[in-house]
Amino acid sequence: MSLIVQKYGGSSVSDAESIKRVAKRIVETRKAGNDVVVAVSAMGDTTDELLDLAHEVTPIPDPRELDMLLTTGERISMALLAMAIKSMGVEARSYTGSQAGMITDARHGSARIVDVTPVRLREALDEGAIAIVAGFQGFNRDSKDITTLGRGGSDTTAVALAAALGADVCEIYTDVDGVFTADPRVVPRAHKIERITSEEMLELAAAGAKVLYIRAVEYARRHGVLLHVRSSFNNNEGTWVTADYPRTEEGTAMEEPIITGVAGDLNEAKITVVGVPDVPGKAADIFAIVAKTGANIDMIVQNVSAAATGRTDISFTLPKGEGEKVLTALRTTQAEVGFASLQYDDQIGKLAVVGAGMRTSAGVSAQLFRALSDAGINIEMISTSEIRISVVTRADTLHEAMRVVHSAFGLDSDEVAVVHAGTGR
Amino acid sequence: MSLIVQKYGGSSVSDAESIKRVAKRIVETRKAGNDVVVAVSAMGDTTDELLDLAHEVTPIPDPRELDMLLTTGERISMALLAMAIKSMGVEARSYTGSQAGMITDARHGSARIVDVTPVRLREALDEGAIAIVAGFQGFNRDSKDITTLGRGGSDTTAVALAAALGADVCEIYTDVDGVFTADPRVVPRAHKIERITSEEMLELAAAGAKVLYIRAVEYARRHGVLLHVRSSFNNNEGTWVTADYPRTEEGTAMEEPIITGVAGDLNEAKITVVGVPDVPGKAADIFAIVAKTGANIDMIVQNVSAAATGRTDISFTLPKGEGEKVLTALRTTQAEVGFASLQYDDQIGKLAVVGAGMRTSAGVSAQLFRALSDAGINIEMISTSEIRISVVTRADTLHEAMRVVHSAFGLDSDEVAVVHAGTGR
Repeated sequence: MSLIVQKYGGSSVSDAESIKRVAKRIVETRKAGNDVVVAVSAMGDTTDELLDLAHEVTPIPDPRELDMLLTTGERISMALLAMAIKSMGVEARSYTGSQAGMITDARHGSARIVDVTPVRLREALDEGAIAIVAGFQGFNRDSKDITTLGRGGSDTTAVALAAALGADVCEIYTDVDGVFTADPRVVPRAHKIERITSEEMLELAAAGAKVLYIRAVEYARRHGVLLHVRSSFNNNEGTWVTADYPRTEEGTAMEEPIITGVAGDLNEAKITVVGVPDVPGKAADIFAIVAKTGANIDMIVQNVSAAATGRTDISFTLPKGEGEKVLTALRTTQAEVGFASLQYDDQIGKLAVVGAGMRTSAGVSAQLFRALSDAGINIEMISTSEIRISVVTRADTLHEAMRVVHSAFGLDSDEVAVVHAGTGR
Repeated sequence: MSLIVQKYGGSSVSDAESIKRVAKRIVETRKAGNDVVVAVSAMGDTTDELLDLAHEVTPIPDPRELDMLLTTGERISMALLAMAIKSMGVEARSYTGSQAGMITDARHGSARIVDVTPVRLREALDEGAIAIVAGFQGFNRDSKDITTLGRGGSDTTAVALAAALGADVCEIYTDVDGVFTADPRVVPRAHKIERITSEEMLELAAAGAKVLYIRAVEYARRHGVLLHVRSSFNNNEGTWVTADYPRTEEGTAMEEPIITGVAGDLNEAKITVVGVPDVPGKAADIFAIVAKTGANIDMIVQNVSAAATGRTDISFTLPKGEGEKVLTALRTTQAEVGFASLQYDDQIGKLAVVGAGMRTSAGVSAQLFRALSDAGINIEMISTSEIRISVVTRADTLHEAMRVVHSAFGLDSDEVAVVHAGTGR
């Protein structure tokens, strides 16, 4: 008998009808002989609506009270889901984050899981019942307060439960068939990936792919949880996210694709610190100032110093929303650091190709740069890791660049992908 | 320094604006030097909306899950209220029924309070903070499940907290100025009662008055909690509900009105069991059958047996909604009990006059019957207690009867009462 943990997102439980549909699916999984634990998000846009309500009351909602408010969304959906399953004649019980043993630190709004002690869930499973758990929330032992886990919290809840319970698989249900080689709304010939490693998934998610949250993927990787991303609208096999590709006795990876997927991101901006004195320590100074703002820096590129001027330019990318505070921080230290000026560019697009196989294949970068230049697309920044190559282009050429690269690496499917309405999460 | 417990109902916290208004009132109470604890209901019609949502999912929602679902309403309003108060610069914290120490039995949907241990509330008050408590809910220690207290639950929460904390007063905020001598929408010359005993309030509430729930009044009476029912729309003094009227040294009650108020009820029906054999035990048999249905019987009248027939009629009143099940139960036992037939009448109206002073005054019944007969209103059933007289009339004469009786007992005010929109609760 398998133990399966399933996660259903907000669009899967947006109203009474879909709740009943999801309940039916859960019951079928149970009746197939599996033990089942479910992590569920709030219905539809409930979380955003509650956030709006809070902001109607005050522009700066108290963090503790905000967590108390937001967690009601998951409580509503978990109770309705348990009711629906019970009305189908199958035993089911709902559990809050606290009741499920999801113990966190005290950081309201972005709590970290410190321990998972699912005693009541095991009891429920031993009695043959289905356990429905409120996603996105936990409990802090010291303050005895409810906490929320931040973005992607329900995915993280599901994975954490799967790890603590030793589940055979953690199924993440979404409104698309799985993880695609590229966003099918941008690249019509994208196809569903059958299998991907968590390392590749992390890179894809960090590069802009929106199906799974980085944090949940990382937790799964660290705790050895097998993920299966699939559609809640059909019974098709989805995308398996595993620790690694199968290897031969010699250690050669079998079926390791060179490029698994292509991701694009239009949410970043570029800041260039122009004319930095080419003296040891300047880069460290600049990024210390940036770090103090708490901004999330992505790509960093430092040009070679121009011998004539003894100065260099340093560019970095970051989420658009964080540009203002970083520019402000840098301006106030301009004299101290001694740079000439600042440039801000929010018309960039970031493209990444990800593949475990690139580790052992030469020429992937060359192939990428050739494909883009053949299409007349200019590359402005380059950044690489072992299994990922990222480039920055103009924002208005990003989507075309994604399609060009997708074809160049042989990822195009014969069919045009079917795109369901929805966020892909 | 006083400790004041305040209760705000759903219509007082129906949206962000009213939540801020209530927050302002709470802050003013605190700034006047009082310690403040607040019990709050769900916003507007939230509870009914959640109930509807549950019934969309299943016609028979599981009781445990229903309580988990319904309690989210109060959690939302308590969190928003605490946020609003904090944004005004005053410390406030929200507490669920469990966190507030509201311990109940396990009867989901109608839990009884078994203990109140408000440790965290006292800590909050000691630190100078305002404690906001979710009304309508408690916690069962054995199952570790959340429970709801049933109708009037938030009033009961407020009174129970006031009793446990030794509060100086428990203020129940509503959308009318207090308890009126009669429903001002029916009796325009009704006026606000300045002071009423809990005994009289119980009778008025049982007779149909809708401002306070019987259960909360009874809890207050038993634990010696002083209630003050007032409007959340102004600062006027409302109605004080006390244990007793002030007494002189000799024990004579001072200012004890003969009639405090008049209540009317159109929600009852009358069942008459016709031709019951006048044999010992028949009445007991009939009411044993009725009791098994769980129906809530109000007035019972047995006519004197007709010597000629050796049979008698027994009439009783009950809420309209329970008529069907009682008729069914009686029909199935007709042969056994031996009555001739059943009559069902849902066109009755019940009128009650309540007053502590009637205990020591003769002629109140006579005055009542005379006033009604002078107005041509026929009395069909009579039932009395020490401080209440109830009569049954035709439903379509009830309102006129209330006005007639209100005048006859000198309760008419010189002014016509101002009626706010709202349920009066």
